[in-house]
Amino acid sequence: MNGKLRAAIVGSTGYGGVELIRLLQSHPNVEITSVISSSSAGVPIEEGFPHLTGVFERSLDGVEAAEIASRADVVFTATPSGVSAKLVPQLLEAGLKVVDLSGDFRLRDGAEYEQWYKHPAPDDVYLQQAVYGLSEVYGERVAGVDFISNPGCYPTATLLGLIPAIEAGWIKPESIIVDAKSGVSGAGRGTSLMVHYAEINENFKAYKINKHQHIPEIEQVLSDIAGEKVTITFTTHLVPMTRGIMTTIYAGMNDKYSEQDFVDLYRKYYTGRPYVRVRNAGIVPATKEVSGSNYCDIGFATDARTGRVTIVSVIDNIVKGAAGQAIQNLNLMMGWEETLGLGYTPVYP
Amino acid sequence: MNGKLRAAIVGSTGYGGVELIRLLQSHPNVEITSVISSSSAGVPIEEGFPHLTGVFERSLDGVEAAEIASRADVVFTATPSGVSAKLVPQLLEAGLKVVDLSGDFRLRDGAEYEQWYKHPAPDDVYLQQAVYGLSEVYGERVAGVDFISNPGCYPTATLLGLIPAIEAGWIKPESIIVDAKSGVSGAGRGTSLMVHYAEINENFKAYKINKHQHIPEIEQVLSDIAGEKVTITFTTHLVPMTRGIMTTIYAGMNDKYSEQDFVDLYRKYYTGRPYVRVRNAGIVPATKEVSGSNYCDIGFATDARTGRVTIVSVIDNIVKGAAGQAIQNLNLMMGWEETLGLGYTPVYP
Amino acid sequence: MNGKLRAAIVGSTGYGGVELIRLLQSHPNVEITSVISSSSAGVPIEEGFPHLTGVFERSLDGVEAAEIASRADVVFTATPSGVSAKLVPQLLEAGLKVVDLSGDFRLRDGAEYEQWYKHPAPDDVYLQQAVYGLSEVYGERVAGVDFISNPGCYPTATLLGLIPAIEAGWIKPESIIVDAKSGVSGAGRGTSLMVHYAEINENFKAYKINKHQHIPEIEQVLSDIAGEKVTITFTTHLVPMTRGIMTTIYAGMNDKYSEQDFVDLYRKYYTGRPYVRVRNAGIVPATKEVSGSNYCDIGFATDARTGRVTIVSVIDNIVKGAAGQAIQNLNLMMGWEETLGLGYTPVYP
Amino acid sequence: MNGKLRAAIVGSTGYGGVELIRLLQSHPNVEITSVISSSSAGVPIEEGFPHLTGVFERSLDGVEAAEIASRADVVFTATPSGVSAKLVPQLLEAGLKVVDLSGDFRLRDGAEYEQWYKHPAPDDVYLQQAVYGLSEVYGERVAGVDFISNPGCYPTATLLGLIPAIEAGWIKPESIIVDAKSGVSGAGRGTSLMVHYAEINENFKAYKINKHQHIPEIEQVLSDIAGEKVTITFTTHLVPMTRGIMTTIYAGMNDKYSEQDFVDLYRKYYTGRPYVRVRNAGIVPATKEVSGSNYCDIGFATDARTGRVTIVSVIDNIVKGAAGQAIQNLNLMMGWEETLGLGYTPVYP
Repeated sequence: MNGKLRAAIVGSTGYGGVELIRLLQSHPNVEITSVISSSSAGVPIEEGFPHLTGVFERSLDGVEAAEIASRADVVFTATPSGVSAKLVPQLLEAGLKVVDLSGDFRLRDGAEYEQWYKHPAPDDVYLQQAVYGLSEVYGERVAGVDFISNPGCYPTATLLGLIPAIEAGWIKPESIIVDAKSGVSGAGRGTSLMVHYAEINENFKAYKINKHQHIPEIEQVLSDIAGEKVTITFTTHLVPMTRGIMTTIYAGMNDKYSEQDFVDLYRKYYTGRPYVRVRNAGIVPATKEVSGSNYCDIGFATDARTGRVTIVSVIDNIVKGAAGQAIQNLNLMMGWEETLGLGYTPVYP
Repeated sequence: MNGKLRAAIVGSTGYGGVELIRLLQSHPNVEITSVISSSSAGVPIEEGFPHLTGVFERSLDGVEAAEIASRADVVFTATPSGVSAKLVPQLLEAGLKVVDLSGDFRLRDGAEYEQWYKHPAPDDVYLQQAVYGLSEVYGERVAGVDFISNPGCYPTATLLGLIPAIEAGWIKPESIIVDAKSGVSGAGRGTSLMVHYAEINENFKAYKINKHQHIPEIEQVLSDIAGEKVTITFTTHLVPMTRGIMTTIYAGMNDKYSEQDFVDLYRKYYTGRPYVRVRNAGIVPATKEVSGSNYCDIGFATDARTGRVTIVSVIDNIVKGAAGQAIQNLNLMMGWEETLGLGYTPVYP
Repeated sequence: MNGKLRAAIVGSTGYGGVELIRLLQSHPNVEITSVISSSSAGVPIEEGFPHLTGVFERSLDGVEAAEIASRADVVFTATPSGVSAKLVPQLLEAGLKVVDLSGDFRLRDGAEYEQWYKHPAPDDVYLQQAVYGLSEVYGERVAGVDFISNPGCYPTATLLGLIPAIEAGWIKPESIIVDAKSGVSGAGRGTSLMVHYAEINENFKAYKINKHQHIPEIEQVLSDIAGEKVTITFTTHLVPMTRGIMTTIYAGMNDKYSEQDFVDLYRKYYTGRPYVRVRNAGIVPATKEVSGSNYCDIGFATDARTGRVTIVSVIDNIVKGAAGQAIQNLNLMMGWEETLGLGYTPVYP
Repeated sequence: MNGKLRAAIVGSTGYGGVELIRLLQSHPNVEITSVISSSSAGVPIEEGFPHLTGVFERSLDGVEAAEIASRADVVFTATPSGVSAKLVPQLLEAGLKVVDLSGDFRLRDGAEYEQWYKHPAPDDVYLQQAVYGLSEVYGERVAGVDFISNPGCYPTATLLGLIPAIEAGWIKPESIIVDAKSGVSGAGRGTSLMVHYAEINENFKAYKINKHQHIPEIEQVLSDIAGEKVTITFTTHLVPMTRGIMTTIYAGMNDKYSEQDFVDLYRKYYTGRPYVRVRNAGIVPATKEVSGSNYCDIGFATDARTGRVTIVSVIDNIVKGAAGQAIQNLNLMMGWEETLGLGYTPVYP
């Protein structure tokens, strides 16, 4: 042991888990002491992920809370929803700190969870204990706690794009429409016709219109910020690319704000927050400009003809939308510099 | 001569022009007698487009109205905007029928044209003479005329997705937001950083937000249908794929319509129109499902929570959004069966 | 019944089967009377393939030879290898003509089949009865027979690229190396990590080096042509694209032939064969130049420094490599014009 | 100044230059003090590369040797061939260390350079002075020198895949055939039809068969190693992806070596070289497994039937094939740890 924080990753054979491994390689204060997969225990991780050859070679461990606790101080649970619901309480009981990347602890209301997720909610005690780790907004709440619920990929892009304007009262909450687009890695590594190359390539499709389980998560936060119940229209699309999310957000403005007004408002809101980059007036970001990095880039187009603003927000869904923000939350939780292990320049082209 | 209608294609070295060649190969009543390119006169077309080897080999002709008139009965002008403005009047004077695929004759108001297109409008006489060929809506007007202005790619997908609902008074015109996505072929064959493979691949970007020249074209038609001035919010995005457009359209409903209501309304409206396929309730189309074909597929998602409908409309931008609809218009103009030369099953996968 | 030949397609829910449907839509002499799938009997085919909506809607039938025989004159079996081995004899017994697209009847030697395919060979009677339908080479043998074994995708591209040179004695058979590349549709519609979009996109990989079951098929034909046992080196790669195969073929030349010599030789060999296009000296084809069509395009680069020729041969793996050649074989079998139902210009771009 | 080595990058607006910026962000001993572009002097680099916003913002400087020398200790010249030929001598005269990423100083023989590159060779003095920086092979020669010629992308993958076998005398040099495939970023950021998205996507094409300027570079090194003149057959292909090179290499073996024999031989040769990963017997690497990293991964398939070995070697063309190896060379030149600034885990998926 070298004085580093010992981290375990449950769900190491998924895209979120393996990205945690990539990013944590350069984290100065963290050492991965266990990679865990219920389905592949005993198998060397580099067999399924040959890119890790010589970089990170380790046999996958099984999922047993006591054993994890003997090897680790903190656990990232990059598990499917439903699995975390059962596992996380055991990990917390065993005295571990937990950053949960599933959606299981993001909604405070268990009934709402069951309505959107279609399976039983975790015990309410844990729903109330979990701190929602949207780093740039709730960074202070995260400091010092033991259990963080990491935001979803769509909610991260959407909320960072909306919150300053909502908080300032510049836009009408009831007018919000979010047209979201995601690369295919967001669907995970499981196989199905939906991720078959020949079905996705040269294709663009919408799915789960107004039915995506990230909707109540977004609405919960927006309602908190707005001080009133906010209901949104939300469409998700699959883009023939691997990484990246763009949310194109539409809202009616309460006054004649210019693009520069929005730029100023957002830059002020995100002062001191290195991972949100507000673009100059007249410029909107593209997904590749944040690829492989923890940035969320935001740009604006206001329209005097219709009185609406169009907000474009992009992230790498596996980094800022999952593994990167989880590490950012760990940093905040531990009182470390927010940027530790996250100093990745976007990979371009 | 074999009794077929003789067709010339100006702009044969662009994607719209070369698609006209592909489709017209199977048209029983048309023979291509001249392929024309101002920049490449004298060059065999199969040099720049080797896929035409052995299928359609012909030296490119120059652009001279009298000469075209000596060889052809009808001309498709698949030329950049600004070029058609000057050329089409000469072709009409020379007695040719014209189907213009540029945007030069789509707006009735020359001043509006100049505001959006940023160059001088064609003579007003021709703006008024041109019949806007949205086949499924204005098919009757097209019959027998000599000069058709072929709709733009985005307007085709958007208008076919909106018109039945507008006409029925089911949606609020002032609430319309169109989030459009296009494959890269829509940008044409000209070279620029914007179409560089390494800049587009694994990237998703928005462009010309609320500034695209197709906006006034859409608004002109919607205003005609609605009987009031309609102003829309319109965003265009570039998808890392070659062909295909999806428009995801949002509008507030005037009543509590179901998805089945919309399906019924649209199927009734498009009765007898073979190239619009209204999907069953609960299903929205993907772009690949129309690839290489002249279909426009439409689906709906209504949302009781927000009172909005989301309409998804897809086309192949080079077929129904350009060359295919141009041939459909020629068929209607000539009083032929609408489907001649267009019997292409979508290419899947 | 309208006097057309009645065709059934077994395996209609695979990419080969659904391409047969697309192509046969425009065949003047054939009517599809049954689409068959063992796994999806009773399901409307347009549910799984929405691009067929309004084009070809039909419930899938089950696989029962007698019932097929009551509805069809000819059967295309686009079934996995192993399935055809059992089914085809029953279909032949029932008096049906069969074009088999699996690999089950391509090798004359059952023992060799079992070595490469790893399951039991069909009865030898059928192996000997099957006529190998490489249309441009064995077109005459196909005429009038009842049972055709349709060539594999890699063999089609490879053999058409090699046979004229082998037959002329211009290249050394023992020196042949085939570096083959295929789009992902060649792997079929089944789901697996190997066809997961996120694993394939932005990736290029080799697989089954010297172990692909198409190797003995290629060697059997080359040996027949060369009059001696030919053994090749053969590598297959997966390209991040949906359709298309390129084989880059290397061979030592027996003399100092020029590119023009090869062009002349091949054009002479393929005279009267519309679906092989030999490119001009100095030009090699790209896969997109045949996409969606039945063409096989071939080009050459000779190298005086090494005394080798590089032959580049491209096809659309689902058309000329499967469904298209199957129809071409049907045409030849029936004594019809070779091009019926195959007049598709490549889709470009 | 903080004691770090000051680096300037000429050609900062190309893909190689901008990748140097990405990688050097994490180099502990180097500070970029000038980014240089002849065409864009005065322009902020983040305008053309928005992914650098907030990461590396700097106005581009002009190309003036004396001025560069006043600001930097070492210069990376990521310039087109022909430009370096003239610029590098001035930089060396000005007392700067130079790592040249163009091909201008890779061939020792100026006449051969002119034959393949089609423009005048640099002064012979500099051709002889340049040390060819194939790090894993010539690392010792690089130490302490002032002027390194960085290998080309194709040669890096090819040579690392061939040298141990050639040196050991296991393969016949005259039998070598290299079938190379590259992502599109290798063509640079300049615009042309060759890199137009709609022409490349869903397409696979061969180019410059036996004519690529990297051929003499490969042959020069192989001849040095083999102690005899080596002539190869070499084909380059363009893959529809952004990053990555695979070379599939074929050679006749001098004995019956197994895959394990090759694995052992190569592992021994590359002992202590962290950036070559030799895969286990029976496994060959895919390009994505090294994406974004400095690794070269190598695998083998031997074939008893033909007596040939197939060697598969992959790199990220912009990292190990350009910017990464340039930094590796700087490290070796300066006597630093080879891995400084290069600790990037491949980005997967």
